[in-house]
Amino acid sequence: MHTLEQLQEKIESAVTDLINQWDHCIPSELYQPISYSLSAGGKRIRPVLALLGCQLFDDNVDKVIPAALAIEIFHNFTLLHDDIIDNADMRRNQPTVHKKFSENRAILSGDAMVFLAYGLLMKSSATNPEIVSLLTQTWLEVCEGQQYDINFENRMDVTSREYLKMIKLKTAVLLGCALAVGAMAGGANVHTATMLNELGINVGLAFQLKDDFLDTFGDEKKFGKKIGNDIIANKKTYLLIKALENATPRQKEILQYWLNAEQFKPLEKIEAVTALYNETGAREEAEKLILSYTDSTLRLLEELPTETAKKAPLEKLCRQLMYRES
Amino acid sequence: MHTLEQLQEKIESAVTDLINQWDHCIPSELYQPISYSLSAGGKRIRPVLALLGCQLFDDNVDKVIPAALAIEIFHNFTLLHDDIIDNADMRRNQPTVHKKFSENRAILSGDAMVFLAYGLLMKSSATNPEIVSLLTQTWLEVCEGQQYDINFENRMDVTSREYLKMIKLKTAVLLGCALAVGAMAGGANVHTATMLNELGINVGLAFQLKDDFLDTFGDEKKFGKKIGNDIIANKKTYLLIKALENATPRQKEILQYWLNAEQFKPLEKIEAVTALYNETGAREEAEKLILSYTDSTLRLLEELPTETAKKAPLEKLCRQLMYRES
Repeated sequence: MHTLEQLQEKIESAVTDLINQWDHCIPSELYQPISYSLSAGGKRIRPVLALLGCQLFDDNVDKVIPAALAIEIFHNFTLLHDDIIDNADMRRNQPTVHKKFSENRAILSGDAMVFLAYGLLMKSSATNPEIVSLLTQTWLEVCEGQQYDINFENRMDVTSREYLKMIKLKTAVLLGCALAVGAMAGGANVHTATMLNELGINVGLAFQLKDDFLDTFGDEKKFGKKIGNDIIANKKTYLLIKALENATPRQKEILQYWLNAEQFKPLEKIEAVTALYNETGAREEAEKLILSYTDSTLRLLEELPTETAKKAPLEKLCRQLMYRES
Repeated sequence: MHTLEQLQEKIESAVTDLINQWDHCIPSELYQPISYSLSAGGKRIRPVLALLGCQLFDDNVDKVIPAALAIEIFHNFTLLHDDIIDNADMRRNQPTVHKKFSENRAILSGDAMVFLAYGLLMKSSATNPEIVSLLTQTWLEVCEGQQYDINFENRMDVTSREYLKMIKLKTAVLLGCALAVGAMAGGANVHTATMLNELGINVGLAFQLKDDFLDTFGDEKKFGKKIGNDIIANKKTYLLIKALENATPRQKEILQYWLNAEQFKPLEKIEAVTALYNETGAREEAEKLILSYTDSTLRLLEELPTETAKKAPLEKLCRQLMYRES
């Protein structure tokens, strides 16, 4: 059995091998942005989840590496295109692909990444049609989630229910799918793979909600970046949506004032909106919801039909993702 | 056995069914541009080739319809993204997707199309791993071809050999792949599928070269649009590249003059450059090359290990594509 750290090293080394291969592919203009994107690091959560899902049932995790890499390539593909759509300049402390190269190259290299991902999948003996189908369905859902996210930018009446559906599609389903694909390659039956899919979705939802939460209520020292960016940018987080849902007419007026304010002192806006998140109960509901997804995750872990010792590395990663303060 | 026209009708009707399905998919913002793109028509050459490839070996062509649709969706996906990259305003007599909707929606809906294509493939019982692998490899090659095309825009030293490699990747391999996939689904062995792939590539090369050729040497009445657009736009066609390769120093000087001219009378430029295409032998070489790909296509058709009668619809489409005057 491998520790979480050993699995993370396996993925890092496999990613490095891939990048070395791409460095010899032509036209280099197409492959450079792909190497650049994959070289930038990131936590490799999704491919590691695939190995963890496999290891619950089979210690021979190497066979699931191609599928794990496919998932990581897909994830990076979404970043290339989303960063164009969101007009983002920086990603992982370096210029985004479309800023470093060009929008056109970010579009086309992103496209190529999808076929590189499927190519890896198809070359792997551990791949079966069920795995390809699940990935394909999930990857379409991620596109749907991104579209919902775009739609929500121009709407002031997004419900918390709609928001949760959006983050489920945009973020959580890929984590669930990674675990399920690993489990399927490791020999799990459909029922167990479905449990792991569910588990990953719960981790993903807790993770994303915690992300929103820390941006407002995190400890700046532990969080590692300034608190309150989402508030300054009027980002439609769970906290904001819930506050709007719960607000009394007077509270709604104050929130709207800050949302519409074009000139303001940043700290003043952060303080006022944070106070409203407390007063409307949005903070409390967010905490409860994170706790509920965390509980569901740990319960599903408990129920998984495999030895407890086998579950330790997966539990460790889940706890890191759900209980993080940074 | 089905006639070419019957197969074309089958595809039209299957595309209509798909569009009707998408009209009920949400978020509609994601699916609208997809329906719009597929509704715009086009000749459906690629999906029809897939059915034709199947019918050579098995009259039950319906089973290959999902793969044929996947190929057509992929083709339209490339148009969505290529039109952004090329900053094209019109396609098939209507605004391009990024002009009608937005660049962001053209990017994201394009992405979704890839997963819809794989989704169709994976739901079909006629799909096997070899088919998915061939399509994936081919679709990556199309991206590589598009990158070469972009690279060539900024180079004055593109060789005719490089140009042929580019149009092979960007256009011809997808035609070959469509035929091969159909043949594989119809039960052809690897050798025969490879022959059909080769045949489709030859048709594709002849088709693309003829496209270039007609833009300069076509009969305006038959061609249906103005002659000489490529010359006006300095488009790097086989004719231009070959003319530059063959030109004497004096001819090269004249060509460069017209390529660099910022103010000119269109007809004068068309006449002068066309004359150089004649004088340098570029026209003759283009005609010879088209003839050679046409001959190879007809020879491969002849050699196909199936009854001659079975080949008639495929031969008809190949001849339409290669001998067209419009």
